[in-house]
Amino acid sequence: MPTLRLALSQVNPSVGDLAGNAGLVRRWTRTAADAGAQLVLFPEMVLTGYPVEDLVFRRSFVAASQAALRRLAADLAADGLGGVPVVVGYLDADGPPQVSSDAEPGRGARNAAAVLHGGEVVATYFKHHLPNYGVFDEDRYFVPGDALTVVRVGGADVALTICEDMWQAGGPFAAARQAGVGLVVTINGSPYELNKDDIRLPLVRRRAAEAGAAVAYVNMVGGQDELVFEGDSLIVGADGTLLARAPQFVEHLLVHDDELPAAEGRGGDAAMAGGAAPAGGELAAGMRIVRATVGDVPPAPGGAAAVGGIIEPVADEAEVWQALVLGLRDYVDKNRFPSVVLGLSGGIDSAVVAALAVDALGPDRVVGVSLPSRHSSEHSRADAEDLAKRTGLDYRVEPIQPMVDTFLANMSLSGVTVENLQARVRGVILMALSNQEGHLVLTTGNKSELAVGYSTLYGDSVGGFNPVKDVWKTLIWRLAKWRNADAARRGETPPIPENSIGKPPSAELSPGQLDSDTLPDYDVLDPILIGYVDGDLGRTGLVESGHDPAVVDRVLRMVDTAEYKRRQSAPGTKISMKAFGRDRRLPITNRWREDG
Amino acid sequence: MPTLRLALSQVNPSVGDLAGNAGLVRRWTRTAADAGAQLVLFPEMVLTGYPVEDLVFRRSFVAASQAALRRLAADLAADGLGGVPVVVGYLDADGPPQVSSDAEPGRGARNAAAVLHGGEVVATYFKHHLPNYGVFDEDRYFVPGDALTVVRVGGADVALTICEDMWQAGGPFAAARQAGVGLVVTINGSPYELNKDDIRLPLVRRRAAEAGAAVAYVNMVGGQDELVFEGDSLIVGADGTLLARAPQFVEHLLVHDDELPAAEGRGGDAAMAGGAAPAGGELAAGMRIVRATVGDVPPAPGGAAAVGGIIEPVADEAEVWQALVLGLRDYVDKNRFPSVVLGLSGGIDSAVVAALAVDALGPDRVVGVSLPSRHSSEHSRADAEDLAKRTGLDYRVEPIQPMVDTFLANMSLSGVTVENLQARVRGVILMALSNQEGHLVLTTGNKSELAVGYSTLYGDSVGGFNPVKDVWKTLIWRLAKWRNADAARRGETPPIPENSIGKPPSAELSPGQLDSDTLPDYDVLDPILIGYVDGDLGRTGLVESGHDPAVVDRVLRMVDTAEYKRRQSAPGTKISMKAFGRDRRLPITNRWREDG
Repeated sequence: MPTLRLALSQVNPSVGDLAGNAGLVRRWTRTAADAGAQLVLFPEMVLTGYPVEDLVFRRSFVAASQAALRRLAADLAADGLGGVPVVVGYLDADGPPQVSSDAEPGRGARNAAAVLHGGEVVATYFKHHLPNYGVFDEDRYFVPGDALTVVRVGGADVALTICEDMWQAGGPFAAARQAGVGLVVTINGSPYELNKDDIRLPLVRRRAAEAGAAVAYVNMVGGQDELVFEGDSLIVGADGTLLARAPQFVEHLLVHDDELPAAEGRGGDAAMAGGAAPAGGELAAGMRIVRATVGDVPPAPGGAAAVGGIIEPVADEAEVWQALVLGLRDYVDKNRFPSVVLGLSGGIDSAVVAALAVDALGPDRVVGVSLPSRHSSEHSRADAEDLAKRTGLDYRVEPIQPMVDTFLANMSLSGVTVENLQARVRGVILMALSNQEGHLVLTTGNKSELAVGYSTLYGDSVGGFNPVKDVWKTLIWRLAKWRNADAARRGETPPIPENSIGKPPSAELSPGQLDSDTLPDYDVLDPILIGYVDGDLGRTGLVESGHDPAVVDRVLRMVDTAEYKRRQSAPGTKISMKAFGRDRRLPITNRWREDG
Repeated sequence: MPTLRLALSQVNPSVGDLAGNAGLVRRWTRTAADAGAQLVLFPEMVLTGYPVEDLVFRRSFVAASQAALRRLAADLAADGLGGVPVVVGYLDADGPPQVSSDAEPGRGARNAAAVLHGGEVVATYFKHHLPNYGVFDEDRYFVPGDALTVVRVGGADVALTICEDMWQAGGPFAAARQAGVGLVVTINGSPYELNKDDIRLPLVRRRAAEAGAAVAYVNMVGGQDELVFEGDSLIVGADGTLLARAPQFVEHLLVHDDELPAAEGRGGDAAMAGGAAPAGGELAAGMRIVRATVGDVPPAPGGAAAVGGIIEPVADEAEVWQALVLGLRDYVDKNRFPSVVLGLSGGIDSAVVAALAVDALGPDRVVGVSLPSRHSSEHSRADAEDLAKRTGLDYRVEPIQPMVDTFLANMSLSGVTVENLQARVRGVILMALSNQEGHLVLTTGNKSELAVGYSTLYGDSVGGFNPVKDVWKTLIWRLAKWRNADAARRGETPPIPENSIGKPPSAELSPGQLDSDTLPDYDVLDPILIGYVDGDLGRTGLVESGHDPAVVDRVLRMVDTAEYKRRQSAPGTKISMKAFGRDRRLPITNRWREDG
């Protein structure tokens, strides 16, 4: 039984930054080689970053990815690392990308994996199952592969797979069993969702059973636009035993010795050298099997066996907090913003966003602005100031009343219009600070508010990034309490004033206003919203779940109305293939330029 | 040779309005029957509207569509129209919609067509080719059908197909040839794009040749969110002759007698009555053939043959103008806004949008507001006032200087920040008018400006709908000249002041400012933008097309920078299956409520 020392490189690439990502692979391969690794694995599309979206349609980008892969193989060899086989994800194509209905089956862009060894690309694999739900649009961008690549490494047969290949039964894992491999490698860009870690391990175990082989699962880490990749890389034995598991939300090199069954004869290593597939065309589970052999790999390391260790996933609140911190930090840093600015109302939402920002960037890169009006209570200003003291952020006060009064003196406005006017003057002030000083404006509306439209378009919705846009209000409170308790546990100052957590929520746009004047209690509202928005339940389903029909009707009407309002800042009539907005899907973090 | 009187109903449904759309089918079927029609055709998903996007995931919506179809069949019979076979598009499903990776092949939601006759659904067809590019995401929503439905109507065999089935070679049209049909019906929701009409007719001719049969192509008309459906329904003979063609951009009933080959024996009408498929399982071009027969159809009408006539498509500028008018009118009316408001700068963009709005809604539903600052020239105000006189819209003046001065007195702002401040104060004023009086705010930024980021986020980008967001600046000028010339030709007052067309463009946010201080001339800029944005060309491709490399570099850098800015009002970190924004794709015009 050969033992293979695996190194799973849970790294954080940036979309479009081909040179930077290649550098990441070289640095981590060096560390892995120093640890005696015999096979080093990197995540899905590590070379281009993920997801690249409409960059796929730029032929020059596809060509740049292909060239970067070849250069990386040569550079690794030049670094003295040519002897270590390295698996990297990249963007490939065997024809022009398919943009239209004229798609030719089997041609076009590929979500690909390559094995680099001896300065060359010795094997490639094209993703077979393409996800096209939720955040995924891969049927739009890629054509599926129809072959399973099996590489002989250090006496063991290793199959390559990519992400979704693991989430669907059949296909590559079934083919891997018939091909008789000892290990299936799966490289991933698997976006974080609450509790996804709880289904990941059972799924990897099922696939190990399906393939009758060990599975090495390496996942990306880091934030990319709206997505967070959580890591949580792991290795499972053929019998389903969890052998090693990396932490969530941080870069990590998981090095572990894996005992694998010896590869069977099938022509022997000598006959297979050079990566040529055997003639005849082996087939398994409907897929062609393409075999290659990596010639010399580093000898089995002496000394103690490498043990990757098993890190237990963290609890829900900690997991969400870390995801939000990482998503915010990477959005700010990958887009090269020096700092952020946000309005501090003294309420819970802005307090939580401020605490997240300070955790992500440090207090010196966070500006908090109190924007009091004549309706702002004394406790609001005091709570905002208390937050600033606790976190150490840069605190300012910009009263809005003079500007509001000038609008009121020059126009004839009343009622809700005046409420919205105050929120919009705040937005203008925050954007002016952003323009003048370079900060990114953070928005602080929670998902419950967004869902029912309890906010001002171009007012409190003004901002470049909203760390809590997908966090229900009741979870906001849980996060605040968890963060404070966690600080207390570590002997630090809890960042969020207890007042902000305890007081009844208010927009403070008219005298004595409370959220509960307009909305049901959040303990009642959130479960209905979760069923309607996240669960696609209708009225009947919600009432059957035990919710009061009158409240359900009221909430659904608010959500349907808000659905418009939210979408009112985007649309216009489309007359071409590539209108901005709906049709044009480019990643926000675009570090790639053809000339650069 | 039987002659079949076809009625192609080019109608304008609304997404989600099942009752309203069913009413539309009943009214138009009545008119068609009065004209002696023997087969009445309605567009793709006419019953639900198109596209329904994530409404597909509401089981109650799918069930409502299925129930509405059965009710429509019964209501047509109750109307005394049961004898006329009617083809309607609707949403069907043979299992729960497929939302995740657990999709079971062959189950889930269907983009469907039904033949209604005698109070019943006598045949159904499921769309075979699902488009998943551009504005289409049908792989996300539907599973493809694998059978071709052939219906015997009045002695002729008629195959049913849906939209994309026609845009790809192979599949249903090849199967139709082998099944020996005389007519292929294709029902469509085909979104308008500039010049699409020029490729539609040749395509229908190719498919007629492929099927060896006449083709009746019926398309939806009307605006839905960002999409415009243009109509342009047509009938082509088996030999490729254009027999009849409906106008673009208006509802129309195209009634035409089509001579078709008599259906062959295949068991005869009697044996096939009731819509049962023959045992045995006929196969053609990889698809199952399902045959049904419509029992009694109305007798061949006496008198003169019905001739649909051939309307020639209009020229480019007229076509775009009509598309923009229709898109704006339906956005406003389907969302039930009473009126629109926009800022009038005296420049060309706001003048064109105002003229479009007056054409779409009439002058009584359009409010134009001059928002002068100390940098506004005298001619700007005069040109805005001239436009108001020419069009008859509701004209107001709201000077912004008092509000701008209050901001400047209370904050320390300079440079571009002050320019943006003026645009944002204008945005606040327009939104206040919207809140106070109920108007939808129209935005007027053209596609060239949007592409290079020559606009103020939360300033001139404030608004609910932008009719010209997909119109390059050079096309804005062409449209203005065309609209004025067209008015002159008809002896009407040209709506757009010649001054607005002729003067050099300026944002007027600082003294003497001109667009040309910052941007290349639009005659140089637009061709580069069209190559980069619409054509996905890179730098090399653009330089090879003859553009100055230095200008290309400058423009590409602006677009890449703007790509961020434009996307800065949306994102936040996602932690669930259905975050607002990227993950949740509901149509804006949502008239469906489970309880209503």
